[in-house]
Amino acid sequence: MTNKLPLSISDVGHISIAVPNLKEAQLFYSKTFGCEASETIDVPAQGIRMVYIFFNNIKIELMEPTNTSSPIQKFLDKNPTGGLHHICLTTNDAQTAKSKLLEDDIRILAAEKVTKGHHGRDIFFMHPKDALGTLIEIEQTDN
Amino acid sequence: MTNKLPLSISDVGHISIAVPNLKEAQLFYSKTFGCEASETIDVPAQGIRMVYIFFNNIKIELMEPTNTSSPIQKFLDKNPTGGLHHICLTTNDAQTAKSKLLEDDIRILAAEKVTKGHHGRDIFFMHPKDALGTLIEIEQTDN
Repeated sequence: MTNKLPLSISDVGHISIAVPNLKEAQLFYSKTFGCEASETIDVPAQGIRMVYIFFNNIKIELMEPTNTSSPIQKFLDKNPTGGLHHICLTTNDAQTAKSKLLEDDIRILAAEKVTKGHHGRDIFFMHPKDALGTLIEIEQTDN
Repeated sequence: MTNKLPLSISDVGHISIAVPNLKEAQLFYSKTFGCEASETIDVPAQGIRMVYIFFNNIKIELMEPTNTSSPIQKFLDKNPTGGLHHICLTTNDAQTAKSKLLEDDIRILAAEKVTKGHHGRDIFFMHPKDALGTLIEIEQTDN
């Protein structure tokens, strides 16, 4: 018996896909499915550049590594054509979300640090081995 | 130059995750994130049973294999803790979608057959090597 409430996560913020060539990947989504895309966004802190692909209900984030030590480059070394990399769930309070997950013995990557995404909002990543093999990013919404 | 229009795909219908234990996976999403879930759905034609996890904007489909020849069992042999398996995009006309994709030289799995999902709606899968390493299901909406 526990009185602890679960996190109240209501939305999947985005689906993230690692790709070897960002321009080709963006063209694939626009030419094949008619999707609109964002401008290219450089994220040097993560060693990637990215583009958002817009669907009505959700964004897909396409990520290309910009240096060989990027975790995305390591993913592409194993999956050269690219592939599904992670999903992002949104919360209104990333610090509280992190504390609740740690209470549930779910490990947080990068020494449990909450960092700022390229958008300036708080983000962190759950350990995939504690989340059914899925890499899950938690992102604070800006409400 | 081409006058060919792309497919008009507006929504990601669901994100699909392969898991070794469906009950534990459902509990993880309900206890950790407070998500509601569907009943368990048996899909003998695909050798899986599944549960939908509901977010405001999208569903996650959790899939557990029910026999050793299921493609999901093969995925779990490589990824024993489970992992992101595919995404599903929705269209109002699966047969036309398939024809347009074939015109773009995108291969369709399972001998290009459009089959019925457990929900009775038309579905097919694009070859991941022709889609940035991502397995993409196309599902006809019932509008």
